[in-house]
Amino acid sequence: MYIETFSQMKKQLGQMEKWLETAATFAKTKSFDPNIFLGFRLAPDQLPFSRQVQIACDSAKLAASRLTGKEAPSHPDTEQTLEQLSARIRSVIAYLDGFSARDFEGAAERSITQPRWEGKTMTGANYFLEHAVPNFFFHITHVYALLRHNGVNVGKADYLGALSLRAP
Amino acid sequence: MYIETFSQMKKQLGQMEKWLETAATFAKTKSFDPNIFLGFRLAPDQLPFSRQVQIACDSAKLAASRLTGKEAPSHPDTEQTLEQLSARIRSVIAYLDGFSARDFEGAAERSITQPRWEGKTMTGANYFLEHAVPNFFFHITHVYALLRHNGVNVGKADYLGALSLRAP
Repeated sequence: MYIETFSQMKKQLGQMEKWLETAATFAKTKSFDPNIFLGFRLAPDQLPFSRQVQIACDSAKLAASRLTGKEAPSHPDTEQTLEQLSARIRSVIAYLDGFSARDFEGAAERSITQPRWEGKTMTGANYFLEHAVPNFFFHITHVYALLRHNGVNVGKADYLGALSLRAP
Repeated sequence: MYIETFSQMKKQLGQMEKWLETAATFAKTKSFDPNIFLGFRLAPDQLPFSRQVQIACDSAKLAASRLTGKEAPSHPDTEQTLEQLSARIRSVIAYLDGFSARDFEGAAERSITQPRWEGKTMTGANYFLEHAVPNFFFHITHVYALLRHNGVNVGKADYLGALSLRAP
């Protein structure tokens, strides 16, 4: 199920890139600088829009890397424009495109850690379900919510993307 | 992985119930009616807080019901207070407590539909990954974001809940 979930993340990262385009078009229509979005926050002590995009990307990228041991591309969080954020999204989608189901063999039993856990570890299975997936959706939904809150015309269908519906 | 994912949803529904308590305490401290939260929206044409809580609950409840064929408890969307919303959350957690891994045998191949799909169907596997899981996280994150936006002191640890970390 790892590869299927990353496939869903790729789909939603692709949707997020479309939201950024919609935001840029909205800015153009209203004659304001589209990059003003990058600093928006829902609360003064919450991370801004740019960081929400970056962390959504990182949640997917780092999960794939940690669960497989495959090196992840570096993204130094220097994006200053919507276009640069879009390029980052595309870079993560391209990275995720390089995985197959086989890469995730043994992922559930891997020992996962990160600096802020101070030496503690999680199994790959627990890390994915308790940390990576909820964080991915948390940050991508904050990106959506920040755009929606600021008047950008996105809706639930833009969030989910196309569904695999079958004709009756 | 169905039962594991529902277990994670239960955990996060339990976290959401705690956010509502934090919101009620905040309202008390600031001397305003705690139920004012129920009508809050991030955009005038987005669903209000109460509906975000209800749909987060329904995303989990209906997914479990549709994937297993087990009847779900009815919730007519009549909640008018934070306490009533908390009761609904607890009711869904109790419903999800009644499932075991065995209930989800064959779930991936089930044919799932709902009225708005106009006769079209999805496989259980696609429905879960493309629709139920993203919707659950979308709505629970909107509940969180609405509280955060309105000054309630919740943070990422309150969103994720306790992690299954192992000592070094």
